[in-house]
Amino acid sequence: MGVEPRLIDTDVHNSMADPKELLPFLPKVWHQQWLEGGVGTEGAKTFTSIGLYRKDADPAEGVKPASDPHFLLEHHIKNNQIDYAILTGTPVMNAISLVYDPDYGSVLARALNDWTVEHWLKVSPHYKGSIHVNVSDPEAAVKEINRMASHPDMVQIIMSSASRLPLGQRFYHPIYEAAERNGLPVAIHPGNEGLGPTPPPTPAGYPTRFMEWENILPLNFMGQVNSLVCEGVFEKFPHLKFVAVEGGISWLPHLMWRMDKNYKALRDTVPWLKRLPSEYIKDHIYLTTQPIEEPADPQHLVQIFQMCGAENMVMFSSDYPHYDNDNPKLTLAAFPKEMKEKIFAKNAVKLYGLDKKVKDVERV
Amino acid sequence: MGVEPRLIDTDVHNSMADPKELLPFLPKVWHQQWLEGGVGTEGAKTFTSIGLYRKDADPAEGVKPASDPHFLLEHHIKNNQIDYAILTGTPVMNAISLVYDPDYGSVLARALNDWTVEHWLKVSPHYKGSIHVNVSDPEAAVKEINRMASHPDMVQIIMSSASRLPLGQRFYHPIYEAAERNGLPVAIHPGNEGLGPTPPPTPAGYPTRFMEWENILPLNFMGQVNSLVCEGVFEKFPHLKFVAVEGGISWLPHLMWRMDKNYKALRDTVPWLKRLPSEYIKDHIYLTTQPIEEPADPQHLVQIFQMCGAENMVMFSSDYPHYDNDNPKLTLAAFPKEMKEKIFAKNAVKLYGLDKKVKDVERV
Repeated sequence: MGVEPRLIDTDVHNSMADPKELLPFLPKVWHQQWLEGGVGTEGAKTFTSIGLYRKDADPAEGVKPASDPHFLLEHHIKNNQIDYAILTGTPVMNAISLVYDPDYGSVLARALNDWTVEHWLKVSPHYKGSIHVNVSDPEAAVKEINRMASHPDMVQIIMSSASRLPLGQRFYHPIYEAAERNGLPVAIHPGNEGLGPTPPPTPAGYPTRFMEWENILPLNFMGQVNSLVCEGVFEKFPHLKFVAVEGGISWLPHLMWRMDKNYKALRDTVPWLKRLPSEYIKDHIYLTTQPIEEPADPQHLVQIFQMCGAENMVMFSSDYPHYDNDNPKLTLAAFPKEMKEKIFAKNAVKLYGLDKKVKDVERV
Repeated sequence: MGVEPRLIDTDVHNSMADPKELLPFLPKVWHQQWLEGGVGTEGAKTFTSIGLYRKDADPAEGVKPASDPHFLLEHHIKNNQIDYAILTGTPVMNAISLVYDPDYGSVLARALNDWTVEHWLKVSPHYKGSIHVNVSDPEAAVKEINRMASHPDMVQIIMSSASRLPLGQRFYHPIYEAAERNGLPVAIHPGNEGLGPTPPPTPAGYPTRFMEWENILPLNFMGQVNSLVCEGVFEKFPHLKFVAVEGGISWLPHLMWRMDKNYKALRDTVPWLKRLPSEYIKDHIYLTTQPIEEPADPQHLVQIFQMCGAENMVMFSSDYPHYDNDNPKLTLAAFPKEMKEKIFAKNAVKLYGLDKKVKDVERV
C-alpha cells in the first residue's frame, strides 16, 4: 500500500555525460548540428553543415585554419600573388565591443593588438594589421588607438558592424576623432549581428536558418552607412574614411538614390549636411568585394558599379579562409581592365597609403 | 534661525497647463516640433516640419486629408484619370497588429473593415478595399478574412510591414492559408517600423531624425521578403501573392543575386526550397512605385527593372495624400511604353482580377 510522500524536490538538474548520449533519440539529419552547435542560442548566427572554413586551409590536422602565419603566406599570399594582405582577425575578435563588461572588452583589444604585432606583423611585410578597439568604452578605445597608431604596419582600426547604437551617433565620435587625427580608416566587419547586446539582425527579428541570416547581413551595413551620413560624421570629420568589409556592394545605388531624393524634401531634419548624401558616400566609404554579387549576366554587376561610382570605392578582399572566399583570378572576370586595376590594388594603395609606407616587399 | 524640516516629499508631479508655456525657454527652431510632436517617444518615427500630408488635400479647413471619399474622387481619382484606387488606410490603421492587447486589435480590424465598406466602397466602384487584420492573433485574423473575403470590392488583405516576428515564420501561416484559399493577395505597408512590440528599424537601433528613418524603411521589406522565401511560404502556399507597398524597388537585384548565390552553397539549410530564391520572388512578390527611386540618369532605373524582371512585379501607386505622393503623369517618364502599361494597370488587373470582378466603372 506504500506510505505518503513526505519530501518532493521539484528542481533537480540532471546532466549528460556526453552529447552523443542524445543521438539514439535524435533523427540522424540533426546529429551534426547537435554535436557541433549544441542548442545554439548563443547568437543569431545559425548552423551550417558545411562549416565556415575551407577544408584545405588547416595548416595541420586539428590546427585552426588561418592560424599559422607561415602556412597562410604559402597557401594564400604566394599562391594568389598578393602584395599586401590586410589582416582583419575573426568575427569573434571583432565581438570584443559586444562584451557586457567594458573593461574585459578593452583588455582583450589591447591583447589582440599586441598579439597581432608579435605573431603576424613581424613574420612578413606582406601583412598589414587592423587595430582592434572596444567601442563600448570610447575613452578606452581612443587610448588604444593612440597607443597603436604609430606602428607602421597597422593600417586601420577595425570594429564590429554589429553595435548597440547606430554608428553615426555621437557616442562614437571620440573614436572617429582619434582615427582622423591618426590618419587611420575605420573598418567594420559583419558576423556578430544580433549577438549579445545588439538589436535583432532584421527589423522584424531573428532569422531561423543560416541561409536566411547570411542573405540579410547587408541590412546592417545599409543602416550604418545611412546613420554615418545622416548624423553628419563626415562634415565633423572631413578626412575620415570608413571601410565596409564583407557587407555587399549592389545595394549602393538604391540607398544613394533614396537618400538623395529624401534630402531634397527633408534636408531641414539634417541641417548639418551641405552636400547630397551620395557625395559623402562616394568620398568617405570604401567597400570590399567578397562576397561579390554574381548575377546570371555578369554585365549587370558592371552596370551597378557604373551607376554609383563603385570603381573608386571598392577594394578586393578574399575572405580567406572562409568557405565562400573569393579567388582573385576568378573575381570580376567580366570587368574592364581599368576598373579591375583600381579594385585589385589602386584603391587600397590610396586608402592605406601603402606606396608610401612600405618599400621592402618583394613581389611574390 | 528657522526649524528643522520634519516632512519632505521627494516626488511631486508638477504639470504644464499648455505646451506653449515652454516656448519662452525653448530656441525658436524647435517650437514646431514641441507643439506638434511633444516629447515624441511614442514611436521610432521622428519629426518632420513639413508634415506628412499635401497641403491641398484637405477637403475643408480642419478636415483631415483623404477623409472625404467624395472630395478624394474629384481631387485625385478624376484629376489623375485613375480607373481603380486600392484603399490602404493609414499607417495608424495598419498598426492594429501591434496593439499589446490582441482582443482590442481584433475588434479594431473588424470595425475598420465595416467602416471601409460603409464609408468608402459604397460611394464609388472606383474604390477597392483592403481587409485589415490583426496578425498578432492569427486565429482571429483568419475569422476576419473569412468574414470579409466574399465582399466583391475587397481585393486584398493588408497588414503592417512592422511585425513582432519575421513574416515568413510559421506563426503567420494560418493567415496565408486563409488568404490563398480566398484568392486574396496579402499586402504589407510601412510606417510603424520600431513601434510598440516591434524590434528597432535597423539592426543597430533607432534612427535619430526623420530623413534617416525615411531612408531606411526598405530594410524591413528586404528582411520580410527574405524571410517569406527562406521559410518556404511559397512552396507551402503556391498560389499566394504578396504586395510590398511603399517599400522601394531598386534593392531587388542585390537581394535576388545574394539569395541565389547563397542558395548554391547553403541550400541544405532550407531543404524545402525547390527553385532559386529569385524565382519565388518573381512569381509571388509584387511591389508598388511610390516612392520610386530617382537616379540622376533615369535610364539607370530602367536598367534596374530589366535586371530583375521588375516590369512584371511593379504596380503604380500614388501614396495620396502624403507629402511625397507621385503624379502618374510624371512617374516613370523615361520608361518604355510597354513597361509603363504593365506598371500603370496590367499588373494590377492581373493580380486583383479587376477585369473579371467589375464591369460598371465608367472611365473618368
